[in-house]
Amino acid sequence: MAHYAKGANAERELIEMFWSSGYAAMRAAGSGISRLPSADVIASNGEKTFAISCKATKKANVYLDADEIKKLRRFAHNFGAIPLIGVRFNGKGWYFIEVHKLKITKRKKFAVSKKIAQKSGKSFEKLVKRNKLYNLK
Amino acid sequence: MAHYAKGANAERELIEMFWSSGYAAMRAAGSGISRLPSADVIASNGEKTFAISCKATKKANVYLDADEIKKLRRFAHNFGAIPLIGVRFNGKGWYFIEVHKLKITKRKKFAVSKKIAQKSGKSFEKLVKRNKLYNLK
Repeated sequence: MAHYAKGANAERELIEMFWSSGYAAMRAAGSGISRLPSADVIASNGEKTFAISCKATKKANVYLDADEIKKLRRFAHNFGAIPLIGVRFNGKGWYFIEVHKLKITKRKKFAVSKKIAQKSGKSFEKLVKRNKLYNLK
Repeated sequence: MAHYAKGANAERELIEMFWSSGYAAMRAAGSGISRLPSADVIASNGEKTFAISCKATKKANVYLDADEIKKLRRFAHNFGAIPLIGVRFNGKGWYFIEVHKLKITKRKKFAVSKKIAQKSGKSFEKLVKRNKLYNLK
């Protein structure tokens, strides 16, 4: 499957998960190509709002450009949303990592390994858990 | 210009307007084709959040399907956003009309005329005006 189609499918899966948890969620059109800040997915239940850059991979690491992170943070800041990286490693489900926990590489890329995701990330269930305010922002 | 491209261009114009007013805004991917509720454009400044179905026309009226309105309301309800119809009549700029002010036709379509838009709608400037909370929701 093409890189784009695979990413889009992962985003659609995530959107279904949000709707099943009482959230409204949608994918952005052209988030990767627009010069304006954006997120791949935005979701809210009226209390918590998440702006998410999504990555789906079969590998052990994913990399994000500094520019992508910058645009995500800018979008989330104006929108009043929490900026997150959503990573789906094959067979491991989704992990959501706060942008400030990402490790920057020498090449000015941000790297997320399975290990970092499992240590610093939240599962989807924890992300959308009720009766507990998300304490970051 | 094709119908889709024209609509997409109008949405892009609106998104630029929101960014210029301190909001974050984005277009939805596939909002017209997904079976899930959606809006064409979502915008927020962290205080006010708008979920907008957009129409751009050269004619004197625009029509919206009952299903489109239903999906917009559902999306906005879950998201915690204000559902609006954004209509741009050629040469008249944008008008934003609250969904409950729309008139339903005998064919179960919702109609917005220039007259209704000018009478019941808000201009973009009024929509994003600060120091005054949007009193609907």
